[in-house]
Amino acid sequence: MKFLHTSDWHIGRTLNGFSLLEEQKYAFEQILSLAKQNQVDGIIIAGDLYERAVPSAESVITFNQMLREMNIIEKFPIYMISGNHDGAKRLSYAKDWLDYNNLHLRTSLEEAFIPVETKETQIFLLPFFDPMDARIYFSNQGLDEEDTKQIKTIDDAMTLVISKMKSQFNNKKNQVLVTHFAVSPHKEEIVLTSETPSKVGGLSTLNVSQFADFDYVALGHIHTRLASPSDKVQYSGSPVKFNTKEASTQKGIFVVEIKEKMLNSNFLPLQVKTDLVVLEEEWEQLISRDFYERQPLNKAWFAITIKNFDRTKLVGQNLRAQLQKIYGTIIELDYQFEKKQLTRSRSQDIETLDNVEILSSFYKFTTGETLDDVQTAIIESTFNELEGEK
Amino acid sequence: MKFLHTSDWHIGRTLNGFSLLEEQKYAFEQILSLAKQNQVDGIIIAGDLYERAVPSAESVITFNQMLREMNIIEKFPIYMISGNHDGAKRLSYAKDWLDYNNLHLRTSLEEAFIPVETKETQIFLLPFFDPMDARIYFSNQGLDEEDTKQIKTIDDAMTLVISKMKSQFNNKKNQVLVTHFAVSPHKEEIVLTSETPSKVGGLSTLNVSQFADFDYVALGHIHTRLASPSDKVQYSGSPVKFNTKEASTQKGIFVVEIKEKMLNSNFLPLQVKTDLVVLEEEWEQLISRDFYERQPLNKAWFAITIKNFDRTKLVGQNLRAQLQKIYGTIIELDYQFEKKQLTRSRSQDIETLDNVEILSSFYKFTTGETLDDVQTAIIESTFNELEGEK
Repeated sequence: MKFLHTSDWHIGRTLNGFSLLEEQKYAFEQILSLAKQNQVDGIIIAGDLYERAVPSAESVITFNQMLREMNIIEKFPIYMISGNHDGAKRLSYAKDWLDYNNLHLRTSLEEAFIPVETKETQIFLLPFFDPMDARIYFSNQGLDEEDTKQIKTIDDAMTLVISKMKSQFNNKKNQVLVTHFAVSPHKEEIVLTSETPSKVGGLSTLNVSQFADFDYVALGHIHTRLASPSDKVQYSGSPVKFNTKEASTQKGIFVVEIKEKMLNSNFLPLQVKTDLVVLEEEWEQLISRDFYERQPLNKAWFAITIKNFDRTKLVGQNLRAQLQKIYGTIIELDYQFEKKQLTRSRSQDIETLDNVEILSSFYKFTTGETLDDVQTAIIESTFNELEGEK
Repeated sequence: MKFLHTSDWHIGRTLNGFSLLEEQKYAFEQILSLAKQNQVDGIIIAGDLYERAVPSAESVITFNQMLREMNIIEKFPIYMISGNHDGAKRLSYAKDWLDYNNLHLRTSLEEAFIPVETKETQIFLLPFFDPMDARIYFSNQGLDEEDTKQIKTIDDAMTLVISKMKSQFNNKKNQVLVTHFAVSPHKEEIVLTSETPSKVGGLSTLNVSQFADFDYVALGHIHTRLASPSDKVQYSGSPVKFNTKEASTQKGIFVVEIKEKMLNSNFLPLQVKTDLVVLEEEWEQLISRDFYERQPLNKAWFAITIKNFDRTKLVGQNLRAQLQKIYGTIIELDYQFEKKQLTRSRSQDIETLDNVEILSSFYKFTTGETLDDVQTAIIESTFNELEGEK
């Protein structure tokens, strides 16, 4: 079986207030082309279909149109689940009718145990859920109260879930799991020297070893494929860049083929419609013709940090307006203060930093090192989860 | 062809803050039974499926479950449209997949012109729309600007819509229209003696003569069947009582059969789960055992008006609490003041009256007569439309 693996479409998302809808549509058209070129047997979307639990009417129409093109017009079977951003209950509307046309959507834990069966493959669709959902489900299944109480972390719940899935395994077929969680790579597991062992990512993170019995695990939740624990258990990442930290990241999808338990997985890149350019320069540089004429003026989105910013020299000037006149769309404008101002401004600045920035400053302060992309992605997804609507 | 005609389910509606969901489910089970007993060929729901454009997750689940039972389990074809309360764009999600299983939902004007065809019948599904939607549609269809501007009222728009539908008529079949508007009976049309002719109901009301070429028109919008313009063009009314003015109304559905252009329509009543009892009595009567022991205490919902209410005599008493202790659920508590207080209290009272009550007082004040059920229904639906989310 050959399929296309994508995730985290987040239809309706904005980047600093700028709609990403055109970017998302552009990525979608490429995904559909790649599905056709590669003659895949199905398309997997591993959760976070929408940005919000109650998506706007425009988002609903856009996503519906994408599903129509893939499933009704091009006849691709679709395998998809709700993520933590999706409103599982609302999304479940009309699910039974979708199944008639090989559009398989699962939005609750209890639906995860009966796989979609193709000739060669069993596809288990496990939507995002939390330990409390698992307590309720297994308690209804007759698990006794003491054992139910032992389900504290998502890892505890997953052990039970996968054990139950395995009872459905048909050994003549391959098993694919589609799910939506933070999964940490086994190799990076850290046991602290203190008496309490601890895992990277904490209580809401799963260990990759949970998934050993599947031939492929198509993950969603973390927006970069670089956070993938292994080739068999991997994130496709989002098809679109959702923030300026991803400016230099290559987005894409996986085309995965499983033949007699052999896995062949290829990452295929997606092009952006509008480039995202990050500039960190001093003010004089930013407004010098020699510098800016080398930039894709009025064609890209610019995220600009003014280095060694000295308020006193630029008093009364509308900096954003000046930059917009030169560059076009400025989606982010930051200021890096001169060192002499740093002490004074630190306590003020913390008010304007987001959680990830605060944590990454703290990390740098305590370890002297900078967070890498994977670490940043895990932290971001954890904050998203904490703040997100379920 | 034999079908069941219902409308205005308004899933998610409350009555003075009391959820009507259990009442709605009870009505639904009876509707499904009647469909089975009468072996209908399809079920028509003529709009206002939900109470709100953005229904709650609970409403979505409930309505989805009802559709499942009718269409997936019992295999009834469904013919339904969006009403003014429904969010047409959101509701259109997954529509194409529903069609595969004979669940036909139309939510926009442009979808109304291709009927659903059965062996004997063409069913035109015309959702609620406004004159501006019609201007846009007919302008896109090549109607010239001057003619487009002439579409001012819904009646203007309907003339064009029905003329276009007629071009699709197959004379060997019957034609049924499902739609969602206020339609006034021809016989009550009033032409004022002034130079400007005027129609009952104003700009947002259609004249029944528009529909002369259909064999049956299944209407939604007005909640009582008593407002039906004719046997061929009729309102089923809502399956549930939505306010205390409807306490003594018999709710139900129509089973309609069309055989060789002959129409046979039967109104079949629905039972309520919880009775709605309206009492207008003086305080002493309300709390007298002789009186209240004849009431269905703790079994019904009570709407109570205390007649000849004299504040001075009952100062410091919690009247609602006393009545609840006797009667159970009090969903409405009103006060009718003694005549001597009337002048003083009128200006205060108007703040607490709803629009329909204000208008009906004004009608009584100016004409000396009381609004009848049909008039009240039309006024209510007009206010709903003005206040409603489209």
